[in-house]
Parts: sequence; structure tokens; C-alpha cells
Amino acid sequence: MGLNLTKLKVKLLDILAGKQTIILNREDAEKIGVHVHDRVRVQSGSNQITAIVQVTATFIDSGQIGIMKDIAEKLHVKDGDEVNIRLASYPESLEYIRKKLKGVTLSKDEIFAIVRDVVEGNLSDLEIAAYLLAEEFYGMSMEEVEYMARAMADVGEKIDFEEPVYDKHSIGGVPGNKVSLLIVPIVAAAGLLIPKTSSKAITSPAGTADTMEVLAPVKFTAQELKDIAKKVRGAIVWGGGLNIAPADDIFIRVEYPLALDPESQMLASIMSKKLAVGVDFLVLDIPTGKGAKVETMNEARTLARKFVELGERLGIHVECGITYGGQPVGHVVGPALEAREALLALQGKGPTSLIEKSTALAGILLELGGLAMRGKGKGIAMEILTSGKALKKMREIIEAQGGDPNVEPEDIPVGEHRVRIEAPCDGYITDVSNDAIKKIARAAGAPMDKGAGIILYGKRGHKVKRGEPILEICAERESRLSEAYALAMKLQPITVEGMLLQRIPEYR
Amino acid sequence: MGLNLTKLKVKLLDILAGKQTIILNREDAEKIGVHVHDRVRVQSGSNQITAIVQVTATFIDSGQIGIMKDIAEKLHVKDGDEVNIRLASYPESLEYIRKKLKGVTLSKDEIFAIVRDVVEGNLSDLEIAAYLLAEEFYGMSMEEVEYMARAMADVGEKIDFEEPVYDKHSIGGVPGNKVSLLIVPIVAAAGLLIPKTSSKAITSPAGTADTMEVLAPVKFTAQELKDIAKKVRGAIVWGGGLNIAPADDIFIRVEYPLALDPESQMLASIMSKKLAVGVDFLVLDIPTGKGAKVETMNEARTLARKFVELGERLGIHVECGITYGGQPVGHVVGPALEAREALLALQGKGPTSLIEKSTALAGILLELGGLAMRGKGKGIAMEILTSGKALKKMREIIEAQGGDPNVEPEDIPVGEHRVRIEAPCDGYITDVSNDAIKKIARAAGAPMDKGAGIILYGKRGHKVKRGEPILEICAERESRLSEAYALAMKLQPITVEGMLLQRIPEYR
Repeated sequence: MGLNLTKLKVKLLDILAGKQTIILNREDAEKIGVHVHDRVRVQSGSNQITAIVQVTATFIDSGQIGIMKDIAEKLHVKDGDEVNIRLASYPESLEYIRKKLKGVTLSKDEIFAIVRDVVEGNLSDLEIAAYLLAEEFYGMSMEEVEYMARAMADVGEKIDFEEPVYDKHSIGGVPGNKVSLLIVPIVAAAGLLIPKTSSKAITSPAGTADTMEVLAPVKFTAQELKDIAKKVRGAIVWGGGLNIAPADDIFIRVEYPLALDPESQMLASIMSKKLAVGVDFLVLDIPTGKGAKVETMNEARTLARKFVELGERLGIHVECGITYGGQPVGHVVGPALEAREALLALQGKGPTSLIEKSTALAGILLELGGLAMRGKGKGIAMEILTSGKALKKMREIIEAQGGDPNVEPEDIPVGEHRVRIEAPCDGYITDVSNDAIKKIARAAGAPMDKGAGIILYGKRGHKVKRGEPILEICAERESRLSEAYALAMKLQPITVEGMLLQRIPEYR
Repeated sequence: MGLNLTKLKVKLLDILAGKQTIILNREDAEKIGVHVHDRVRVQSGSNQITAIVQVTATFIDSGQIGIMKDIAEKLHVKDGDEVNIRLASYPESLEYIRKKLKGVTLSKDEIFAIVRDVVEGNLSDLEIAAYLLAEEFYGMSMEEVEYMARAMADVGEKIDFEEPVYDKHSIGGVPGNKVSLLIVPIVAAAGLLIPKTSSKAITSPAGTADTMEVLAPVKFTAQELKDIAKKVRGAIVWGGGLNIAPADDIFIRVEYPLALDPESQMLASIMSKKLAVGVDFLVLDIPTGKGAKVETMNEARTLARKFVELGERLGIHVECGITYGGQPVGHVVGPALEAREALLALQGKGPTSLIEKSTALAGILLELGGLAMRGKGKGIAMEILTSGKALKKMREIIEAQGGDPNVEPEDIPVGEHRVRIEAPCDGYITDVSNDAIKKIARAAGAPMDKGAGIILYGKRGHKVKRGEPILEICAERESRLSEAYALAMKLQPITVEGMLLQRIPEYR
């Protein structure tokens, strides 16, 4: 193949393809002998690209080729120009995906080829999904995970901070986990460099980037992040704003409709981003418990060992902290509420559980950085917190990122449409469901409505009296509040000895 | 969810979506809280649809919604109209796909829901591919296969011939398998009703429909097929022209890039089409051998038993014939060449292997139809063939389908650009590669160039002398010929005791 040229006239489409795709008329496709998902080589003068074929019966006439704006720019063609096209072989990476679908272990080169083609748009979503499904079914060897992490890092931008970099990462699944907003300033106040990149929520009510964004901008270029971190030793920015490990967003996009989350890909994804920003020491928070991503201690230990091994392969010193993840962390969920709670905790007024967890994890980093003896890190982290140094550092970070350094917790607006749910009887709270809390907070508008969220007045083991409020939903919009309330009635996020929940005042 | 309406202005796109998709600006998507692959409910007056979200950064402005022509028609909206959109839950069938991804066996209702949503465009290619991959990984129970076949038939058009229907089907993989063009007229000449629907080639050089199309049109409506078959007792039409089991084309489209072919889906696909046209008696040809879809006798027997069991569940009497599939059937490959060879065989001048195979399979149908004692069908089929009744019937069928009933083999044009490959030494042919023959014939232009194909002068076990032609490539275009030749040099389709092949005369 390769010699049969067909000449077609460009019909320029005012759409961004995003992917390497072109559109052919069904008749032409038949004549050329190409099918949907086949690849063609499109050539204009000395410019050529390979693109995936879409076929239409009516929109593109026979003799035409539909070319979208971004592809037209690559080819330097305009409406009405003539281009040559011919059937192209599919990218080799598709052959590797087919191999993986048969359970074959892939080589370093094969994995790099897949990641490169994912980022360059040479593979369709369907093909990428097939790869991830094969990962889910067959798993990946630790070597494959290593290559995947390296490939994902190498294909994107890298930042070199030119000194040891410390970092903290939490495995997802637990709402209210705003510990980064405490750990980063504690560790930076101690003098270690901790330029944290974080994510926005996909299925949760608040990612760290969503919460930090309440206090300061989070979108920066690599150079800006470097400048900020060098100046104040710490930062909490949105990883999606940088171009690090760009394959990850694409993987997440195709995993999302399938509710797919292969463990091997999670390992590679997290570590690829650490590689890209040159992390040397990482503390990994593994929240464990019902409704968290990791449900049992055994799973947590196995996962921890994998992270440590992968870290060794990648030259990153990883220590894992298995934490309790059976219910939300702290007492609030949602960007504004969490930013508030974090500030309060930095002022010594936060919930004990949040402070305990944050200082424990920060302490591990202080030990890794040689600033505390083994076992003494948490105490030092706590000192930094209670002395107000962490708060001062957080204000410096907020200022360096362009926020208001003098922000006080009460300055942060929280949704004014509210409804309380009260205990229907005396008793102990036996369960606070991570999953229900996340769904209700999202229904209330989080994370897009920053002020939306949930306040928990009681958590597991708390004794409550009939009529006491146990949960409050906050929303910026009345319509969102009623949706969230309806969902809360259905999902029963808090269980008090099995009784149904009621609303006071009665909702119309 | 469900209460949060967002108003957007329609930007009408002159494209056919084909699927239930709409395009949102990235900002709006964030505001509404939807992601790529999420579903939204789009409402205009009393019309509403659920559509899958695509997101763009630039092409659709904030406040707009990109709606393609076919979707706009469903909604009765035009450019500039205002529509309400809100986040919709994903279709339940997606939940069932996720279940299947976890290895759970699906119920009848669940499988029907998936097939319905596949056909209605409510599932993305990615989601459909995930389902098929789960089938590939976990397999389907025979019950699931039954439901899949029934669902695929029920969702499309059905044809009721109001009398017992006979049919023949070959499992793919072997080039040159033009047996339908002999079996259908033999069986119809005996008086049984055999309205054969067949496919065009996807990865092979000639589907039965491609070959029949050389002799007569093959695209008919259900009513036309019924009329033709009732009149002359047989037909060979293109199944894709009817609307039977429309899910199949979609499944094939997503399987294709992944080279995916789950056995359970093949069973369901074949039998769904038989159900749709009301087949009562089916003879199933299972070509078995190296390079065929089924490579060993054991596999063939297992597959045969599955077809028989599935047939019982569906009320179709199935008998399987395991045939030799280790090399091409007959001596030619490609639509025009195969149509010629079939006509010659009907005139008693065809290759023995083709006649033997065709009469054996036709004989089974004659036995099933009560026209021959068990074991005597082949003899009667042979009589029908040698007496010229089958040829006469074939001419009737060709005429009924609108072709020239007086066509002679030599009237059929075959590509005039030709090159012969000769035996490089004395010896026996040890192998004729199905796969290589298919690829070379396709490179030569088949099936789109009807006259393109391959003539085999020798097959396995034949003794050849150095310099004797063993293979000839025919093409309609010189450029195709050189491609096919180059490929033949690379793939070595015929092995004569391990020697390399040469071309005479030398190619420039």
C-alpha cells in the first residue's frame, strides 16, 4: 500500500478536531477501500499527516475531504485546495494494543510508542480504552508500570527545581481530605521545597486544586511554579494547568464513562507526575476504609509496597502513610468550606482528626528531609503548626500565587441556601457514607459552585440526641439545594442506629 | 440531578452526527458540571433527547450548543433557537456494560437494553468496544448468546417468508470461498426456498455479496427480496442493504480497529441474521485449517456444537459441515474471478474441490428438506449440478435480481494488468497462505476493483517445475498491480520447498 493516490478537494470545517481525524464521503471511502477507524496519509505539497478516517453519507460530497481547522493548519491547506490521500498503515502502537489485548507483556519501546500516540492524537478513544481495559484485565508487570510512568513523564513537560523536591500525594476516594493545605505550609515552613501539583475534582466534590483556588489562583506555567516555589518554598497549583504528563487527562477521559480505574494505571499516573516535577521524596497518603478507594488494610499494605518499589525503580524515595478513610476527613466537604476549615486548622482551631493526620504525614517528610529523627517528625510538624509558622507560610504561599494573604476563614463565602438534617432519634452515629456525601455535595453544586458543600455535625461514634442537627447542606443556588436535599433523603448519608433521616423545617 | 436547567443557543452544524451527540463550550461544560462522554438532556418545547457531550475550547462559544443536522431535526430546532439542557443520567445500558466489565453475567433485559442503545446511538464507540472486550475476556454464557442473537434480530427488520426457509453460512477466513454461488442454485433448483443474505468484504478480498454483484445487483428491500425468492426460490443479496440486525454493523465497526472477534459475538451475529429472515434449516460451513478462522478440528467441533445448541434455543435446525480451510477454495480469489469460476463450475468446468465442497453442503440442506435420505444428499446435489439444472436456476436468480441471465464466464471482465509469479525450482507446493493471498488480492484492488484478484496455478501438494507459473495477480490499475506484486514478494504466499519466489519478467 502507499502508491494509490486519490485527489480530493478540501472542505474546510470550522471545528477543532483535537484528534488526527478527517472526514470522507462514503463513496470515496469505498473506492479507496478505507473504513471508519482506518488511517489515511493526507499530503499537500511537502506537508503530510496521518489521520483517522470518519465517514459520512451526506455532509462531505464525493470528491471532497472534510478537514478541520487544526489539521488544516498542520497541512497548510485552505478551503478548495487539492490534497492527495492514500491508505496508510495503522500506527505500530495499535499493534501493541492488540498484543496487550491478548495478554502479552509489552516492552519499554512499545509502551512509549502507545503513550506518544495517545498524546499526538494518533489513537482513537476506542483504541485507548481497549488498552486500559487490557490493563484492567491482565494487569501490568512492575516493569511495564515503570515504563508507563516514564513514558507519561517524558512525553510531557518536565520541571527541574535544581534541588531536592518533597511532595505529598493522597489516593482519592475520601471527601474532605484537605490535608495538603496543611502539609505544604508546614513542610515549606521547615525549609523544604514542596511545589505541590494537584488536581481538580472529576467525580469528587473538591480536588485540592479546587479548594486552593478559593484562596488563590492555581493555574501557572512551569516557570511561574518554579519562581513561586523558589521564593516561598511551597506552592499548591493545578497540575492540569501545566503540561506535565499530558497523556493522563486523555486516559482519564476514556476511563470515565466506563468507571474504569486500573490499579497499574493509577500507579503510573501518580508517579509520572512526580517524575515530571523531579520529586525526590514523596509521602503517600493511603486513606483506607469503607467507601475509600482502598477498603482494607491488606490492600493498603500491598498497594504501599507497590508504590515503594515503583519509587525505587524511578529514583523517588516513597514512604506511605495508611490513614483512616472510612468517613470524610474533618467536618466539611466542598471547596469553600474546606478552605475555611484548613485555615482554621492552621490557626489551631481545626478538627483534631485533620490536624493529627496532617502533622503525621508532614512529619514523615520532615524526617525524610533530615529535619527530624525517625519518629520525631510529627512532633516537629505539630510545633510548626501550633507556633503559627505554618499559617504564616500559608499566607506567603497565597500571596505568591496572587491571592489575598490576609484572608480570614470568615471572609470565605459559603452558599447561603442551606438545609439542616437532624438526628431522628437518640443514639450513636454508626456510619457516614463517603459515597453518599460526595454525591450530595456534588448535587449541591460542588466543585463548580465553590460555596456548595456539606457540614457534618457528627461523625462515626458520636452520640447524638434526637433533633440535634447532624448534617447541613450548603448551596449557592436554591435549585441545587433541593436536588441535594432530595438526594440526601434517598441516600441517607449518615446512619444513626438505622433510623431514617428527617428534615427540619419540613421541605415543601 | 434533573432540576438544573441551563439555557443555550443552538449553533446548527451542517454535519450528520450519526450518534446522539452535541457539542458544548468547555466553560459551559464546567459550569454545568459535565464532562466529555457525559449525557445531557436537551429540551426544546415538548421535544427532548438525551445526547452524549463533546467539548470544545473554541469552536462553540460559551452560551452556545453545537447541534448537528440530524439531532436538530429530532428536536425541531434551527440555528439561534434556545434550548434547555441539564445533566442527564447515563443510559442504564452503560451500567450493564460496566457490570459485564466486572465479569457479571447479564440478564435478557440487560442485553436487550444494550443492543437497543447501540442501535439508537446512545452509546459511544468506546462504550460499545468496552462491552465487546468484556465479551472477549469473559465470554458469554449460551443463554447470553441467545439473548444477544434475539435482541439483535428484534431491534431490526424481520422478514417472514411464510414457509420453511433454508440457508447456508460459511465462517470466514478462507479466501476464494464462492460456494454460495453453487449451493443456492442447487438447493433452489430442488425446490427449497433459500433467500441467502450475504456480506460484503471487510478484511477479505471478496464477500459473497461482492462476488454476486458481478453478476447482478444485490441491494434490495425486504419486500423485494421476498418477491425474488418467492418467484425463483433462491436469491443471493447483500444483507447490509436490508435493515436486518442493524447492531451488527456497529459492532463490526468498533471491533475492526482492535482486530477483535469474540466468538460469542460471532455466534450471536450470524444467528441473529438467520432469525431475522426466519431461517428454519441452516447448514453451517466451518472451514478449518491453518490461516482460517478455525485452525484445528477440535476447535471446529466445539464451535459446531455451540452453533447446534444455539440453533436449538432459537428454533433453527443447524447442521455443521467442517471443511478443509487450510488454503483458498478453488483456484481464484477476487469478485470477478470468483464469479467466473462459480459459473464455470455450474457448467461442470469448475475445480473439483469447489464442486465437491458445494455439493456436500447443498446435500445436507436437501436432506434437511426431506428431498434426500440421510447420506444421499450430496449425490442428488451433484445430479442437479451436472444436469445443468443448477446453472439454469442460477440464470433465473441472476435475472430476477436484475442481471444478465445469459452471462458467460468469458464475458466477465478481469483486470488486464497482470503479473505471473513462477516456481523458482522443481518441487512440491507445501503451503498456500490464506492470509497472504487475502492481503495481496486486496492490495491489487479487490473487492472494490471487481476485476482484481489472484489466480492460483498450483495449490498444496501440487508438483511444479522450475519456471512454471504458480500464481498470477490481476489488477485493474497498474499502480495497484505494483503494490500487490511488491507485497507478494514480501509475503511469499506460496511456498515451494522453502525457496524464494521470483517474478518473470523482471519488474522495474
